[in-house]
Amino acid sequence: MIWSNFKAWQVARALASWGRPTFREKKLMATTFKRTIWLDEKDPTIVHIIDQRKLPHSYETMALKTADDAINAIADMAVRGAPLIGATGAYGVYLGLLEEKEEFRSLAERMKRARPTAVNLAWAVDRIAEAIGDAGSAGAAQRALGEAEAIVEEDVEICRQIGVHGLRLIEEIAARKQGPVNVLTHCNAGSLATIEWGTATSPIYHAHEKGIPIHVWVDETRPRNQGASLTAYELGAHGVPHTVIVDNAGGHLMQHGEVDLVLVGTDRTTRTGDVCNKIGTYLKALAASDCGVPFYVGAPSPSIDWSVRDGLREIPIEERSGEEVSYLEGQGASAVTRVRLTPEASPCVNPAFDVTPARLVTGLITERGICPATEEGLLSLFPENA
Amino acid sequence: MIWSNFKAWQVARALASWGRPTFREKKLMATTFKRTIWLDEKDPTIVHIIDQRKLPHSYETMALKTADDAINAIADMAVRGAPLIGATGAYGVYLGLLEEKEEFRSLAERMKRARPTAVNLAWAVDRIAEAIGDAGSAGAAQRALGEAEAIVEEDVEICRQIGVHGLRLIEEIAARKQGPVNVLTHCNAGSLATIEWGTATSPIYHAHEKGIPIHVWVDETRPRNQGASLTAYELGAHGVPHTVIVDNAGGHLMQHGEVDLVLVGTDRTTRTGDVCNKIGTYLKALAASDCGVPFYVGAPSPSIDWSVRDGLREIPIEERSGEEVSYLEGQGASAVTRVRLTPEASPCVNPAFDVTPARLVTGLITERGICPATEEGLLSLFPENA
Repeated sequence: MIWSNFKAWQVARALASWGRPTFREKKLMATTFKRTIWLDEKDPTIVHIIDQRKLPHSYETMALKTADDAINAIADMAVRGAPLIGATGAYGVYLGLLEEKEEFRSLAERMKRARPTAVNLAWAVDRIAEAIGDAGSAGAAQRALGEAEAIVEEDVEICRQIGVHGLRLIEEIAARKQGPVNVLTHCNAGSLATIEWGTATSPIYHAHEKGIPIHVWVDETRPRNQGASLTAYELGAHGVPHTVIVDNAGGHLMQHGEVDLVLVGTDRTTRTGDVCNKIGTYLKALAASDCGVPFYVGAPSPSIDWSVRDGLREIPIEERSGEEVSYLEGQGASAVTRVRLTPEASPCVNPAFDVTPARLVTGLITERGICPATEEGLLSLFPENA
Repeated sequence: MIWSNFKAWQVARALASWGRPTFREKKLMATTFKRTIWLDEKDPTIVHIIDQRKLPHSYETMALKTADDAINAIADMAVRGAPLIGATGAYGVYLGLLEEKEEFRSLAERMKRARPTAVNLAWAVDRIAEAIGDAGSAGAAQRALGEAEAIVEEDVEICRQIGVHGLRLIEEIAARKQGPVNVLTHCNAGSLATIEWGTATSPIYHAHEKGIPIHVWVDETRPRNQGASLTAYELGAHGVPHTVIVDNAGGHLMQHGEVDLVLVGTDRTTRTGDVCNKIGTYLKALAASDCGVPFYVGAPSPSIDWSVRDGLREIPIEERSGEEVSYLEGQGASAVTRVRLTPEASPCVNPAFDVTPARLVTGLITERGICPATEEGLLSLFPENA
């Protein structure tokens, strides 16, 4: 079977200029938690994902067999998180090519429209297009698969490297304090948003794997509750001690010395170090600054938008439906149930992200190392963008 | 019937050293919203309350006929908010005296235990005890009722005065901007927490009554959602334009100039101006300070604890059940339903209040006027506490 050889070659290519996971790193990830997307081991025409809409109340996987399966999984948010959306789109194009019933151009366009605001989706589909080049139909599918696997392995390695670098911060705190290192995180910048490791969570998993006592304060993250549902779920699955708190509580905990480090992700980082992330991140950065708590951002280089200098003025903030505020889903007595929280006549607004100015960010943890949240800092690690 | 005369005398006494509500003030409150507690118009042995546990999904009143009815209403949180708890306890003692089946001392003790942490409850019961003095059993009930009515009227007048003073802040903003004055509030420091007017909401109602265009951003206020349920409900009932937002959104709105004024309540104010209020207030104060938005606190003098200097070190913060974080109630398809939000294995913690340091508070709005959040400021209005 050529698939496994091909996959091995792609992995080797993706990792060529990188470190390699240690045995213990591999063991941690392999034994405690599946990746968020994977090719069926026996039938390479099937791609599996976790249906994240069902978490934390039930763990269900979905088999994607067609391009439409992938498009629906993205559009209906069975998968979310920019890197994972990109990977699903890439695999989806591969599945579409196997079907041999639609022109590539139309397939690619439909895939990109599944969630038009996710930059990674268009980027991943374009990468597949480039990889295919002028290959014939059978060769095209194989090349698409290879590129999809490369995209996946690159993301895994970026996240792993963020963990390797971020681990140092946790080790430094552990060296000077008694008891567990208390990390506060907001939203889900975890393995569920990526393929494996996550961004903000990668240093946490690395510390936990090294036996450093660590405890995570998990912000609920209203309105979509990605913290209470996804981050709490995956930390639990990895065996990392954690406690869920409402978004209102983090400032109080910082005032009382209960937080040693804030670690969050980023949806878009400016070349000057401003961080656009899930709504509410700015409030935690303010509290961290006021209380002298270090505030770090797991920032993979694909999140850096080198064309933007002023995050607050230049980054448009997605307004999502007010129904995400007025309604909430949870596990009822017998089934997952949707309930209304607000008076029917009260309107709601729902900005999805906010911008944390660079001045409130202690540092950015990238796959190439940690740097100050400044243009000079970022260019010292990524001089090719000068 | 002597009740109505007696009541009129009590009201006159309570208002003797105060201003009187204007005709328009009376009209606003009388026509749009009932008080939160009132004596039955025909049968003065019955006290009515709003069952606040049912809001915002249904408006139901409850008739209290015995001391136990009042104790249960307080303990089960059909009524909440320190002033309203105090008033309910006072009326409850009156109802108990009418029953003539329990000694006053035992009745008073049971009433105080209904919610032991609510300072106003013990204070109100003690006031009743003092008012009764050595009156015989029939006279005792009458004096208790008189004192309960006095407690109620004093609270109404304190809240009204906070509105009169706070209105000036809103008028100043309205004078220099186009469009509505945007006020952000957290939790419910509204009429539902008091008898009428509320504390933080009183300037808002006064401005609305004067025809000043005003719009309120209502923080949801997790975990108990007093904003999304109670504040949104009462603003709607009074016809005040408002929009519900998640607690995470306020900082972003302030960054973008969408908030002109933050107005919150206080559970306990130190003599130095620190403000202990619902968890999350501190985060909004930080954002207001960072964005140059004035941050004012509706602070009735009974909330000032003259014995405390350092709110952060000296005020113990109530830890409530983690189940308030992991479970939430809302209106389901057919009934109010409780749903679980978090993984079953994930613990939750739930601090109920935080302390906003005085340096982040622009000013305190008391019933005697507005002052800086400093010891000098407070003593300038309340010199008797020097």
